[in-house]
Amino acid sequence: MGRVTTRARITRLQGTQRVVRPDTVVVEEPLELRVDGTALAVTMRTPGSDIELAQGFLLTEGIVTGRDDIAAIRYCNSTGDDGRNTYNVLDIDLAPGVALPVTGIERNFYTTSSCGVCGKASLDAIRQRSRHSPAHDPVVVDPEVLAVMPSALRQAQDTFDRTGGLHAAGLFTVAGELLALREDVGRHNAVDKIIGWAVEHRRLPLRHTVLLVSGRASFELTQKTVMAGIPILAAVSAPSSLAIDLAHDAGLTLVGFLRGDTMNVYTRAERVGTGNAGLDSVSISTGAFDG
Amino acid sequence: MGRVTTRARITRLQGTQRVVRPDTVVVEEPLELRVDGTALAVTMRTPGSDIELAQGFLLTEGIVTGRDDIAAIRYCNSTGDDGRNTYNVLDIDLAPGVALPVTGIERNFYTTSSCGVCGKASLDAIRQRSRHSPAHDPVVVDPEVLAVMPSALRQAQDTFDRTGGLHAAGLFTVAGELLALREDVGRHNAVDKIIGWAVEHRRLPLRHTVLLVSGRASFELTQKTVMAGIPILAAVSAPSSLAIDLAHDAGLTLVGFLRGDTMNVYTRAERVGTGNAGLDSVSISTGAFDG
Repeated sequence: MGRVTTRARITRLQGTQRVVRPDTVVVEEPLELRVDGTALAVTMRTPGSDIELAQGFLLTEGIVTGRDDIAAIRYCNSTGDDGRNTYNVLDIDLAPGVALPVTGIERNFYTTSSCGVCGKASLDAIRQRSRHSPAHDPVVVDPEVLAVMPSALRQAQDTFDRTGGLHAAGLFTVAGELLALREDVGRHNAVDKIIGWAVEHRRLPLRHTVLLVSGRASFELTQKTVMAGIPILAAVSAPSSLAIDLAHDAGLTLVGFLRGDTMNVYTRAERVGTGNAGLDSVSISTGAFDG
Repeated sequence: MGRVTTRARITRLQGTQRVVRPDTVVVEEPLELRVDGTALAVTMRTPGSDIELAQGFLLTEGIVTGRDDIAAIRYCNSTGDDGRNTYNVLDIDLAPGVALPVTGIERNFYTTSSCGVCGKASLDAIRQRSRHSPAHDPVVVDPEVLAVMPSALRQAQDTFDRTGGLHAAGLFTVAGELLALREDVGRHNAVDKIIGWAVEHRRLPLRHTVLLVSGRASFELTQKTVMAGIPILAAVSAPSSLAIDLAHDAGLTLVGFLRGDTMNVYTRAERVGTGNAGLDSVSISTGAFDG
Protein backbone atom coordinates (compact mmCIF):
# COMPACT_ATOMS: atom_id res chain seq x y z
CA MET A 1 0.00 0.00 0.00
CA GLY A 2 3.04 2.26 -0.02
CA ARG A 3 2.42 5.85 0.91
CA VAL A 4 -1.32 5.85 0.28
CA THR A 5 -1.98 5.10 3.92
CA THR A 6 0.00 5.39 7.09
CA ARG A 7 -0.48 4.43 10.72
CA ALA A 8 -1.42 6.69 13.58
CA ARG A 9 -1.85 6.07 17.28
CA ILE A 10 -5.39 7.01 18.26
CA THR A 11 -7.54 7.06 21.33
CA ARG A 12 -10.83 5.37 20.47
CA LEU A 13 -13.77 6.31 22.65
CA GLN A 14 -17.03 4.40 22.66
CA GLY A 15 -19.33 5.33 25.46
CA THR A 16 -17.20 5.05 28.57
CA GLN A 17 -14.70 2.73 26.89
CA ARG A 18 -11.36 4.25 25.99
CA VAL A 19 -8.78 2.29 24.02
CA VAL A 20 -5.44 3.45 22.69
CA ARG A 21 -4.58 1.61 19.48
CA PRO A 22 -3.07 2.08 16.04
CA ASP A 23 -5.30 3.02 13.14
CA THR A 24 -4.90 3.52 9.39
CA VAL A 25 -5.13 7.04 7.98
CA VAL A 26 -4.89 8.30 4.44
CA VAL A 27 -1.73 10.14 3.47
CA GLU A 28 -1.93 13.78 2.39
CA GLU A 29 1.30 15.35 1.12
CA PRO A 30 2.13 18.34 -1.05
CA LEU A 31 3.13 17.76 -4.67
CA GLU A 32 4.90 20.61 -6.39
CA LEU A 33 4.73 20.82 -10.17
CA ARG A 34 7.59 22.68 -11.84
CA VAL A 35 7.75 23.69 -15.48
CA ASP A 36 11.20 24.55 -16.76
CA GLY A 37 12.37 24.99 -13.17
CA THR A 38 9.62 27.36 -12.16
CA ALA A 39 7.00 26.35 -9.61
CA LEU A 40 3.64 26.12 -11.34
CA ALA A 41 1.45 24.58 -8.67
CA VAL A 42 1.44 22.88 -5.30
CA THR A 43 -1.38 20.45 -4.75
CA MET A 44 -2.16 18.56 -1.56
CA ARG A 45 -2.60 15.01 -2.74
CA THR A 46 -2.38 11.35 -1.80
CA PRO A 47 0.88 10.00 -3.26
CA GLY A 48 0.51 7.64 -6.18
CA SER A 49 -0.19 8.16 -9.87
CA ASP A 50 1.67 11.46 -9.55
CA ILE A 51 2.65 11.66 -13.20
CA GLU A 52 -0.93 11.03 -14.22
CA LEU A 53 -1.96 13.73 -11.81
CA ALA A 54 0.48 16.16 -13.41
CA GLN A 55 -0.66 15.25 -16.91
CA GLY A 56 -4.31 15.61 -15.99
CA PHE A 57 -3.68 18.93 -14.29
CA LEU A 58 -1.84 20.27 -17.34
CA LEU A 59 -4.68 19.16 -19.60
CA THR A 60 -7.57 20.40 -17.49
CA GLU A 61 -5.80 23.71 -16.93
CA GLY A 62 -5.51 24.16 -20.67
CA ILE A 63 -1.71 24.18 -20.61
CA VAL A 64 -1.35 21.14 -22.88
CA THR A 65 -3.75 19.61 -25.37
CA GLY A 66 -2.42 16.06 -25.28
CA ARG A 67 0.47 13.74 -24.61
CA ASP A 68 2.61 15.13 -27.41
CA ASP A 69 2.75 18.54 -25.74
CA ILE A 70 4.71 16.99 -22.84
CA ALA A 71 8.35 16.08 -23.41
CA ALA A 72 9.12 14.60 -20.00
CA ILE A 73 7.97 14.44 -16.40
CA ARG A 74 10.32 13.19 -13.68
CA TYR A 75 10.80 13.48 -9.92
CA CYS A 76 13.30 16.09 -8.77
CA ASN A 77 16.09 15.23 -6.40
CA SER A 78 14.25 17.00 -3.63
CA THR A 79 15.23 15.78 -0.20
CA GLY A 80 13.48 16.00 3.13
CA ASP A 81 14.89 16.44 6.62
CA ASP A 82 16.03 12.82 6.55
CA GLY A 83 18.10 13.37 3.40
CA ARG A 84 15.91 11.06 1.34
CA ASN A 85 14.06 11.99 -1.83
CA THR A 86 10.61 13.23 -0.89
CA TYR A 87 9.11 12.29 -4.25
CA ASN A 88 7.01 15.40 -3.73
CA VAL A 89 8.38 17.53 -6.59
CA LEU A 90 7.91 16.84 -10.30
CA ASP A 91 9.91 18.49 -13.07
CA ILE A 92 7.94 18.94 -16.26
CA ASP A 93 9.47 19.66 -19.66
CA LEU A 94 6.98 20.88 -22.22
CA ALA A 95 7.52 19.89 -25.84
CA PRO A 96 9.29 22.37 -28.13
CA GLY A 97 6.90 25.11 -29.14
CA VAL A 98 4.58 24.55 -26.17
CA ALA A 99 4.64 27.38 -23.68
CA LEU A 100 2.74 28.31 -20.59
CA PRO A 101 -0.12 30.52 -21.69
CA VAL A 102 0.47 34.21 -21.19
CA THR A 103 -2.45 35.18 -19.05
CA GLY A 104 -1.14 38.33 -17.50
CA ILE A 105 -1.20 36.72 -14.09
CA GLU A 106 1.48 35.00 -12.15
CA ARG A 107 1.09 31.27 -12.58
CA ASN A 108 2.00 30.27 -9.08
CA PHE A 109 -0.67 27.87 -8.05
CA TYR A 110 -1.27 26.51 -4.63
CA THR A 111 -3.93 23.88 -4.41
CA THR A 112 -5.09 22.18 -1.30
CA SER A 113 -6.31 18.65 -0.97
CA SER A 114 -9.67 19.82 -2.19
CA CYS A 115 -8.73 22.41 -4.77
CA GLY A 116 -7.70 21.88 -8.32
CA VAL A 117 -7.37 25.10 -10.22
CA CYS A 118 -5.58 27.98 -8.61
CA GLY A 119 -3.81 31.08 -9.68
CA LYS A 120 -6.44 32.90 -11.65
CA ALA A 121 -7.39 36.30 -10.34
CA SER A 122 -10.04 37.19 -12.86
CA LEU A 123 -13.58 35.88 -12.74
CA ASP A 124 -13.45 35.71 -16.52
CA ALA A 125 -10.47 33.40 -16.33
CA ILE A 126 -12.32 30.73 -14.40
CA ARG A 127 -13.80 29.04 -17.41
CA GLN A 128 -11.38 27.12 -19.56
CA ARG A 129 -12.05 26.69 -23.24
CA SER A 130 -12.31 22.98 -24.07
CA ARG A 131 -10.92 21.59 -27.30
CA HIS A 132 -12.95 18.44 -26.67
CA SER A 133 -16.53 19.62 -26.32
CA PRO A 134 -18.91 16.81 -25.38
CA ALA A 135 -21.89 18.72 -26.81
CA HIS A 136 -22.32 16.61 -29.92
CA ASP A 137 -21.53 13.17 -28.49
CA PRO A 138 -24.67 11.15 -29.38
CA VAL A 139 -24.01 8.52 -26.71
CA VAL A 140 -26.83 7.06 -24.60
CA VAL A 141 -26.40 5.21 -21.31
CA ASP A 142 -28.95 2.86 -19.85
CA PRO A 143 -30.04 4.00 -16.36
CA GLU A 144 -29.73 0.41 -15.17
CA VAL A 145 -26.06 0.52 -16.16
CA LEU A 146 -25.60 3.83 -14.35
CA ALA A 147 -27.34 2.43 -11.28
CA VAL A 148 -24.73 -0.24 -10.63
CA MET A 149 -21.68 1.96 -11.19
CA PRO A 150 -21.42 3.28 -7.60
CA SER A 151 -21.28 -0.22 -6.15
CA ALA A 152 -18.81 -1.29 -8.85
CA LEU A 153 -16.65 1.68 -7.90
CA ARG A 154 -16.79 0.84 -4.20
CA GLN A 155 -15.94 -2.79 -4.83
CA ALA A 156 -12.92 -1.75 -6.88
CA GLN A 157 -11.67 0.74 -4.31
CA ASP A 158 -8.86 -0.68 -2.30
CA THR A 159 -8.31 1.99 0.32
CA PHE A 160 -11.58 3.71 1.10
CA ASP A 161 -13.02 1.10 3.38
CA ARG A 162 -9.90 1.10 5.51
CA THR A 163 -9.54 4.85 6.07
CA GLY A 164 -12.80 6.51 5.09
CA GLY A 165 -10.66 9.41 3.93
CA LEU A 166 -10.43 9.06 0.18
CA HIS A 167 -12.48 10.34 -2.69
CA ALA A 168 -12.77 8.12 -5.74
CA ALA A 169 -13.29 8.77 -9.42
CA GLY A 170 -14.03 6.04 -11.92
CA LEU A 171 -14.17 6.14 -15.69
CA PHE A 172 -16.66 3.73 -17.23
CA THR A 173 -17.73 2.87 -20.73
CA VAL A 174 -21.44 3.40 -21.34
CA ALA A 175 -21.72 -0.39 -21.25
CA GLY A 176 -20.58 -0.29 -17.62
CA GLU A 177 -16.98 -1.45 -17.99
CA LEU A 178 -14.61 0.21 -15.53
CA LEU A 179 -11.70 1.66 -17.50
CA ALA A 180 -9.82 3.38 -14.69
CA LEU A 181 -10.20 4.09 -10.97
CA ARG A 182 -8.22 6.59 -8.95
CA GLU A 183 -8.42 7.68 -5.31
CA ASP A 184 -7.17 10.77 -3.53
CA VAL A 185 -7.82 12.97 -0.51
CA GLY A 186 -8.71 15.62 -3.09
CA ARG A 187 -11.68 15.03 -5.36
CA HIS A 188 -10.12 17.10 -8.13
CA ASN A 189 -6.90 15.10 -7.86
CA ALA A 190 -8.74 11.81 -8.35
CA VAL A 191 -10.31 13.27 -11.50
CA ASP A 192 -7.00 14.70 -12.74
CA LYS A 193 -5.40 11.28 -12.27
CA ILE A 194 -8.13 9.68 -14.38
CA ILE A 195 -7.73 12.27 -17.12
CA GLY A 196 -3.94 12.01 -16.91
CA TRP A 197 -4.32 8.29 -17.50
CA ALA A 198 -6.26 9.09 -20.66
CA VAL A 199 -3.60 11.63 -21.70
CA GLU A 200 -0.90 8.99 -21.26
CA HIS A 201 -2.83 6.44 -23.28
CA ARG A 202 -3.81 9.01 -25.92
CA ARG A 203 -7.50 8.37 -25.39
CA LEU A 204 -8.65 11.96 -25.50
CA PRO A 205 -11.32 13.03 -26.14
CA LEU A 206 -13.04 10.52 -23.87
CA ARG A 207 -16.10 9.94 -26.02
CA HIS A 208 -18.75 7.39 -25.01
CA THR A 209 -17.66 7.33 -21.38
CA VAL A 210 -19.13 8.13 -17.96
CA LEU A 211 -17.10 9.74 -15.19
CA LEU A 212 -18.38 8.78 -11.74
CA VAL A 213 -17.31 10.75 -8.67
CA SER A 214 -17.93 9.62 -5.11
CA GLY A 215 -19.00 12.99 -3.75
CA ARG A 216 -20.56 16.16 -5.04
CA ALA A 217 -20.31 17.77 -8.45
CA SER A 218 -18.78 21.23 -8.16
CA PHE A 219 -18.05 23.71 -10.92
CA GLU A 220 -14.45 22.58 -10.83
CA LEU A 221 -15.07 18.87 -11.37
CA THR A 222 -17.57 19.68 -14.09
CA GLN A 223 -15.02 21.82 -15.88
CA LYS A 224 -12.41 19.07 -15.75
CA THR A 225 -14.94 16.64 -17.21
CA VAL A 226 -15.69 19.00 -20.08
CA MET A 227 -11.99 19.60 -20.76
CA ALA A 228 -11.54 15.86 -21.34
CA GLY A 229 -14.53 15.60 -23.67
CA ILE A 230 -16.39 13.22 -21.35
CA PRO A 231 -20.11 13.38 -22.24
CA ILE A 232 -21.61 12.20 -18.92
CA LEU A 233 -20.66 13.15 -15.35
CA ALA A 234 -22.39 11.23 -12.56
CA ALA A 235 -22.09 12.14 -8.90
CA VAL A 236 -23.25 10.21 -5.88
CA SER A 237 -24.18 13.46 -4.17
CA ALA A 238 -25.44 16.94 -5.10
CA PRO A 239 -24.29 19.27 -7.88
CA SER A 240 -23.94 23.02 -7.41
CA SER A 241 -25.77 25.66 -9.40
CA LEU A 242 -22.62 26.62 -11.28
CA ALA A 243 -21.91 22.99 -12.14
CA ILE A 244 -25.39 22.79 -13.68
CA ASP A 245 -24.87 26.07 -15.56
CA LEU A 246 -21.57 24.91 -17.00
CA ALA A 247 -22.95 21.48 -17.90
CA HIS A 248 -25.81 23.19 -19.71
CA ASP A 249 -23.52 25.52 -21.64
CA ALA A 250 -21.05 22.77 -22.51
CA GLY A 251 -23.60 20.15 -23.55
CA LEU A 252 -22.60 17.77 -20.75
CA THR A 253 -25.05 15.34 -19.18
CA LEU A 254 -24.94 15.90 -15.43
CA VAL A 255 -26.36 13.23 -13.11
CA GLY A 256 -26.56 13.71 -9.34
CA PHE A 257 -27.76 11.73 -6.33
CA LEU A 258 -27.02 8.48 -8.13
CA ARG A 259 -28.19 6.05 -5.47
CA GLY A 260 -29.57 2.66 -6.27
CA ASP A 261 -31.98 2.97 -9.17
CA THR A 262 -32.80 6.59 -8.42
CA MET A 263 -30.97 9.55 -9.88
CA ASN A 264 -31.48 13.18 -10.86
CA VAL A 265 -30.49 14.25 -14.36
CA TYR A 266 -29.85 17.99 -14.49
CA THR A 267 -28.87 18.53 -18.12
CA ARG A 268 -29.06 16.72 -21.46
CA ALA A 269 -31.30 14.01 -20.02
CA GLU A 270 -31.80 12.45 -23.48
CA ARG A 271 -28.46 10.70 -22.98
CA VAL A 272 -29.91 8.68 -20.09
CA GLY A 273 -32.31 6.07 -21.47
CA THR A 274 -32.53 2.74 -23.16
CA GLY A 275 -33.01 3.94 -26.70
CA ASN A 276 -36.25 1.94 -26.83
CA ALA A 277 -39.59 1.70 -25.07
CA GLY A 278 -38.17 0.22 -21.90
CA LEU A 279 -38.96 3.32 -19.89
CA ASP A 280 -42.41 4.46 -19.02
CA SER A 281 -43.41 7.61 -20.78
CA VAL A 282 -42.18 10.78 -19.20
CA SER A 283 -44.57 12.62 -16.95
CA ILE A 284 -44.13 16.30 -16.33
CA SER A 285 -44.79 17.49 -12.83
CA THR A 286 -46.80 20.67 -12.82
CA GLY A 287 -46.35 21.26 -9.12
CA ALA A 288 -45.43 24.80 -8.22
CA PHE A 289 -41.89 25.47 -7.08
CA ASP A 290 -41.89 24.79 -3.39
CA GLY A 291 -38.69 26.63 -2.57
CA MET B 1 -33.50 31.84 1.34
CA GLY B 2 -32.05 34.45 -1.00
CA ARG B 3 -29.15 33.25 -3.09
CA VAL B 4 -28.21 30.26 -0.96
CA THR B 5 -30.36 27.99 -3.07
CA THR B 6 -31.90 28.19 -6.50
CA ARG B 7 -34.25 26.09 -8.58
CA ALA B 8 -33.36 23.77 -11.41
CA ARG B 9 -35.49 21.67 -13.72
CA ILE B 10 -34.45 18.06 -13.33
CA THR B 11 -35.38 14.68 -14.73
CA ARG B 12 -35.86 12.33 -11.81
CA LEU B 13 -35.48 8.63 -12.59
CA GLN B 14 -36.56 5.89 -10.24
CA GLY B 15 -36.57 2.46 -11.78
CA THR B 16 -38.57 2.88 -14.96
CA GLN B 17 -40.35 6.01 -13.72
CA ARG B 18 -39.21 9.27 -15.22
CA VAL B 19 -40.53 12.61 -13.96
CA VAL B 20 -39.53 16.11 -14.99
CA ARG B 21 -39.87 18.47 -12.05
CA PRO B 22 -38.21 21.42 -10.33
CA ASP B 23 -35.67 20.81 -7.59
CA THR B 24 -33.64 22.89 -5.17
CA VAL B 25 -29.89 23.19 -5.68
CA VAL B 26 -27.27 25.00 -3.69
CA VAL B 27 -25.80 28.13 -5.24
CA GLU B 28 -22.08 28.26 -6.06
CA GLU B 29 -20.74 31.61 -7.29
CA PRO B 30 -17.30 33.21 -7.44
CA LEU B 31 -16.38 35.82 -4.86
CA GLU B 32 -13.45 38.04 -5.72
CA LEU B 33 -11.55 39.68 -2.87
CA ARG B 34 -9.70 42.88 -3.78
CA VAL B 35 -7.23 44.70 -1.57
CA ASP B 36 -6.54 48.29 -2.55
CA GLY B 37 -7.94 47.60 -5.99
CA THR B 38 -5.81 44.53 -6.68
CA ALA B 39 -7.36 41.08 -6.97
CA LEU B 40 -6.19 38.98 -4.04
CA ALA B 41 -8.33 35.86 -4.37
CA VAL B 42 -11.30 34.35 -6.10
CA THR B 43 -13.17 31.77 -4.09
CA MET B 44 -16.10 29.66 -5.25
CA ARG B 45 -18.61 30.06 -2.46
CA THR B 46 -22.26 30.01 -1.53
CA PRO B 47 -23.38 33.65 -1.24
CA GLY B 48 -24.10 34.85 2.28
CA SER B 49 -21.86 35.98 5.14
CA ASP B 50 -19.47 37.26 2.48
CA ILE B 51 -17.85 39.86 4.71
CA GLU B 52 -17.28 37.24 7.40
CA LEU B 53 -15.79 35.02 4.72
CA ALA B 54 -13.41 37.79 3.70
CA GLN B 55 -12.44 38.50 7.29
CA GLY B 56 -11.86 34.86 8.04
CA PHE B 57 -9.81 34.40 4.88
CA LEU B 58 -7.63 37.39 5.73
CA LEU B 59 -7.08 36.04 9.26
CA THR B 60 -6.40 32.42 8.33
CA GLU B 61 -4.07 33.50 5.52
CA GLY B 62 -2.05 35.52 8.02
CA ILE B 63 -2.77 38.83 6.28
CA VAL B 64 -4.49 40.40 9.30
CA THR B 65 -4.27 39.58 12.98
CA GLY B 66 -7.67 40.90 14.01
CA ARG B 67 -10.53 43.27 13.34
CA ASP B 68 -8.45 46.40 13.85
CA ASP B 69 -6.25 45.53 10.88
CA ILE B 70 -9.25 45.95 8.56
CA ALA B 71 -10.46 49.47 7.79
CA ALA B 72 -13.40 48.63 5.58
CA ILE B 73 -14.97 45.89 3.45
CA ARG B 74 -17.69 46.71 0.93
CA TYR B 75 -19.21 45.33 -2.25
CA CYS B 76 -17.89 46.82 -5.50
CA ASN B 77 -20.22 48.18 -8.11
CA SER B 78 -19.54 45.15 -10.24
CA THR B 79 -22.33 44.43 -12.69
CA GLY B 80 -23.28 41.28 -14.53
CA ASP B 81 -24.74 40.84 -18.00
CA ASP B 82 -28.06 42.09 -16.74
CA GLY B 83 -26.57 45.36 -15.53
CA ARG B 84 -27.25 44.56 -11.89
CA ASN B 85 -24.71 44.41 -9.10
CA THR B 86 -23.40 40.86 -8.87
CA TYR B 87 -22.45 41.21 -5.21
CA ASN B 88 -19.58 38.93 -6.15
CA VAL B 89 -16.69 41.37 -5.63
CA LEU B 90 -15.56 42.77 -2.28
CA ASP B 91 -13.24 45.77 -1.89
CA ILE B 92 -11.06 45.52 1.20
CA ASP B 93 -9.21 48.45 2.75
CA LEU B 94 -6.54 47.41 5.21
CA ALA B 95 -5.89 49.67 8.19
CA PRO B 96 -3.02 52.18 7.95
CA GLY B 97 0.27 50.39 8.46
CA VAL B 98 -1.11 46.97 7.53
CA ALA B 99 0.24 45.67 4.25
CA LEU B 100 0.03 42.46 2.30
CA PRO B 101 2.99 40.35 3.36
CA VAL B 102 5.91 40.42 0.98
CA THR B 103 6.34 36.76 0.15
CA GLY B 104 8.13 37.04 -3.14
CA ILE B 105 5.23 35.41 -4.91
CA GLU B 106 2.35 36.91 -6.75
CA ARG B 107 -0.64 36.95 -4.47
CA ASN B 108 -3.25 36.15 -7.03
CA PHE B 109 -5.30 33.45 -5.43
CA TYR B 110 -7.90 31.37 -7.12
CA THR B 111 -9.83 29.15 -4.81
CA THR B 112 -12.52 26.73 -5.83
CA SER B 113 -15.53 25.70 -3.84
CA SER B 114 -13.34 23.28 -1.97
CA CYS B 115 -10.07 25.19 -1.69
CA GLY B 116 -9.15 27.80 0.81
CA VAL B 117 -5.56 28.82 0.55
CA CYS B 118 -4.09 29.45 -2.84
CA GLY B 119 -1.22 31.34 -4.34
CA LYS B 120 1.73 29.88 -2.53
CA ALA B 121 4.32 28.28 -4.73
CA SER B 122 6.71 27.06 -2.08
CA LEU B 123 6.16 23.99 0.04
CA ASP B 124 7.66 25.96 2.89
CA ALA B 125 4.98 28.57 2.52
CA ILE B 126 2.13 26.17 3.18
CA ARG B 127 2.28 26.42 6.91
CA GLN B 128 1.10 29.68 8.38
CA ARG B 129 2.48 30.89 11.67
CA SER B 130 -0.34 31.25 14.18
CA ARG B 131 -0.39 34.08 16.70
CA HIS B 132 -3.04 32.19 18.62
CA SER B 133 -1.51 28.83 19.39
CA PRO B 134 -3.96 26.44 21.06
CA ALA B 135 -1.11 24.41 22.57
CA HIS B 136 -1.51 25.65 26.12
CA ASP B 137 -5.29 25.87 26.34
CA PRO B 138 -6.10 23.66 29.37
CA VAL B 139 -9.71 23.11 28.31
CA VAL B 140 -11.40 19.72 28.67
CA VAL B 141 -14.56 18.64 26.87
CA ASP B 142 -16.81 15.83 28.03
CA PRO B 143 -17.16 13.15 25.32
CA GLU B 144 -20.89 13.06 26.00
CA VAL B 145 -21.03 16.73 25.07
CA LEU B 146 -19.02 16.10 21.90
CA ALA B 147 -21.29 13.18 21.02
CA VAL B 148 -24.40 15.32 20.66
CA MET B 149 -22.78 18.13 18.66
CA PRO B 150 -23.28 16.57 15.19
CA SER B 151 -27.01 16.20 15.71
CA ALA B 152 -27.19 19.71 17.16
CA LEU B 153 -25.43 20.99 14.05
CA ARG B 154 -27.77 19.15 11.73
CA GLN B 155 -30.83 20.41 13.57
CA ALA B 156 -29.58 23.96 13.28
CA GLN B 157 -28.77 23.69 9.57
CA ASP B 158 -31.45 25.29 7.48
CA THR B 159 -30.33 24.35 3.97
CA PHE B 160 -28.55 21.02 4.01
CA ASP B 161 -31.59 18.84 4.18
CA ARG B 162 -33.11 20.54 1.16
CA THR B 163 -30.17 20.35 -1.21
CA GLY B 164 -27.66 17.89 0.20
CA GLY B 165 -25.01 20.16 -1.27
CA LEU B 166 -23.70 22.16 1.66
CA HIS B 167 -20.91 21.65 4.13
CA ALA B 168 -21.43 22.99 7.62
CA ALA B 169 -19.13 24.25 10.33
CA GLY B 170 -20.29 24.93 13.87
CA LEU B 171 -18.50 26.61 16.72
CA PHE B 172 -19.47 25.31 20.15
CA THR B 173 -18.47 26.09 23.70
CA VAL B 174 -17.05 23.11 25.54
CA ALA B 175 -20.36 23.04 27.40
CA GLY B 176 -22.09 22.29 24.11
CA GLU B 177 -23.60 25.70 23.35
CA LEU B 178 -23.67 26.50 19.63
CA LEU B 179 -22.07 29.90 19.14
CA ALA B 180 -22.15 30.12 15.36
CA LEU B 181 -23.11 27.97 12.37
CA ARG B 182 -22.19 28.59 8.75
CA GLU B 183 -22.81 26.60 5.57
CA ASP B 184 -21.12 26.68 2.19
CA VAL B 185 -20.42 24.54 -0.86
CA GLY B 186 -16.80 24.85 0.22
CA ARG B 187 -15.75 23.39 3.55
CA HIS B 188 -12.98 25.96 3.96
CA ASN B 189 -15.46 28.75 3.28
CA ALA B 190 -17.78 27.55 6.04
CA VAL B 191 -14.81 27.59 8.42
CA ASP B 192 -13.62 30.99 7.21
CA LYS B 193 -17.11 32.39 7.78
CA ILE B 194 -17.08 31.08 11.35
CA ILE B 195 -13.67 32.59 12.02
CA GLY B 196 -14.69 35.82 10.30
CA TRP B 197 -17.63 35.98 12.69
CA ALA B 198 -15.13 35.73 15.55
CA VAL B 199 -12.95 38.42 13.96
CA GLU B 200 -15.94 40.74 13.69
CA HIS B 201 -16.92 40.16 17.31
CA ARG B 202 -13.31 40.41 18.51
CA ARG B 203 -13.46 36.95 20.05
CA LEU B 204 -10.02 35.80 18.93
CA PRO B 205 -8.33 33.69 20.07
CA LEU B 206 -11.22 31.25 20.34
CA ARG B 207 -10.19 29.63 23.60
CA HIS B 208 -12.41 26.99 25.22
CA THR B 209 -14.27 26.20 22.01
CA VAL B 210 -14.82 23.24 19.71
CA LEU B 211 -15.02 23.60 15.94
CA LEU B 212 -17.16 20.88 14.36
CA VAL B 213 -17.01 20.25 10.60
CA SER B 214 -19.48 18.09 8.72
CA GLY B 215 -16.93 16.28 6.56
CA ARG B 216 -13.28 15.34 6.71
CA ALA B 217 -10.39 17.10 8.42
CA SER B 218 -7.78 18.11 5.87
CA PHE B 219 -4.51 19.93 6.45
CA GLU B 220 -6.20 23.10 5.31
CA LEU B 221 -9.10 23.02 7.77
CA THR B 222 -6.72 22.08 10.55
CA GLN B 223 -4.52 25.05 9.76
CA LYS B 224 -7.46 27.45 9.81
CA THR B 225 -8.47 26.05 13.21
CA VAL B 226 -4.97 26.63 14.58
CA MET B 227 -4.84 30.15 13.16
CA ALA B 228 -7.95 31.06 15.18
CA GLY B 229 -6.60 29.54 18.39
CA ILE B 230 -9.37 26.96 18.62
CA PRO B 231 -8.14 24.11 20.87
CA ILE B 232 -10.38 21.28 19.59
CA LEU B 233 -11.31 20.36 16.01
CA ALA B 234 -13.91 17.62 15.59
CA ALA B 235 -14.81 16.09 12.24
CA VAL B 236 -17.62 13.74 11.39
CA SER B 237 -15.37 11.92 8.96
CA ALA B 238 -11.67 11.04 8.56
CA PRO B 239 -8.60 13.23 9.04
CA SER B 240 -5.59 13.11 6.73
CA SER B 241 -2.05 12.31 7.79
CA LEU B 242 -0.95 15.91 7.35
CA ALA B 243 -3.88 17.16 9.42
CA ILE B 244 -2.73 14.86 12.24
CA ASP B 245 0.88 16.01 11.86
CA LEU B 246 -0.10 19.66 12.04
CA ALA B 247 -2.45 19.08 14.98
CA HIS B 248 0.38 17.33 16.81
CA ASP B 249 2.86 20.12 16.12
CA ALA B 250 0.38 22.87 17.01
CA GLY B 251 -0.98 21.28 20.18
CA LEU B 252 -4.49 20.97 18.75
CA THR B 253 -6.88 18.21 19.81
CA LEU B 254 -8.09 16.48 16.66
CA VAL B 255 -11.19 14.29 16.81
CA GLY B 256 -12.42 12.28 13.81
CA PHE B 257 -15.28 9.91 13.00
CA LEU B 258 -17.45 11.61 15.61
CA ARG B 259 -20.56 9.46 15.28
CA GLY B 260 -22.93 8.83 18.10
CA ASP B 261 -20.92 8.07 21.23
CA THR B 262 -17.92 6.79 19.28
CA MET B 263 -15.00 8.92 18.15
CA ASN B 264 -11.30 8.73 17.41
CA VAL B 265 -8.98 11.19 19.11
CA TYR B 266 -5.77 11.60 17.13
CA THR B 267 -3.86 14.17 19.18
CA ARG B 268 -3.92 15.70 22.65
CA ALA B 269 -6.53 13.21 23.87
CA GLU B 270 -6.25 14.51 27.43
CA ARG B 271 -8.63 17.31 26.43
CA VAL B 272 -11.42 14.77 25.86
CA GLY B 273 -12.64 13.49 29.19
CA THR B 274 -14.76 14.29 32.17
CA GLY B 275 -12.07 15.53 34.47
CA ASN B 276 -13.11 12.86 36.98
CA ALA B 277 -13.45 9.10 37.23
CA GLY B 278 -16.44 8.91 34.92
CA LEU B 279 -14.50 7.07 32.27
CA ASP B 280 -13.24 3.56 32.60
CA SER B 281 -9.51 3.34 32.84
CA VAL B 282 -7.67 3.47 29.59
CA SER B 283 -6.66 0.17 28.08
CA ILE B 284 -3.80 0.03 25.65
CA SER B 285 -4.20 -2.28 22.70
CA THR B 286 -1.04 -4.18 22.05
CA GLY B 287 -2.27 -5.64 18.80
CA ALA B 288 0.26 -5.53 16.00
CA PHE B 289 -0.30 -2.98 13.26
CA ASP B 290 -2.51 -4.68 10.76
CA GLY B 291 -1.91 -2.29 7.88
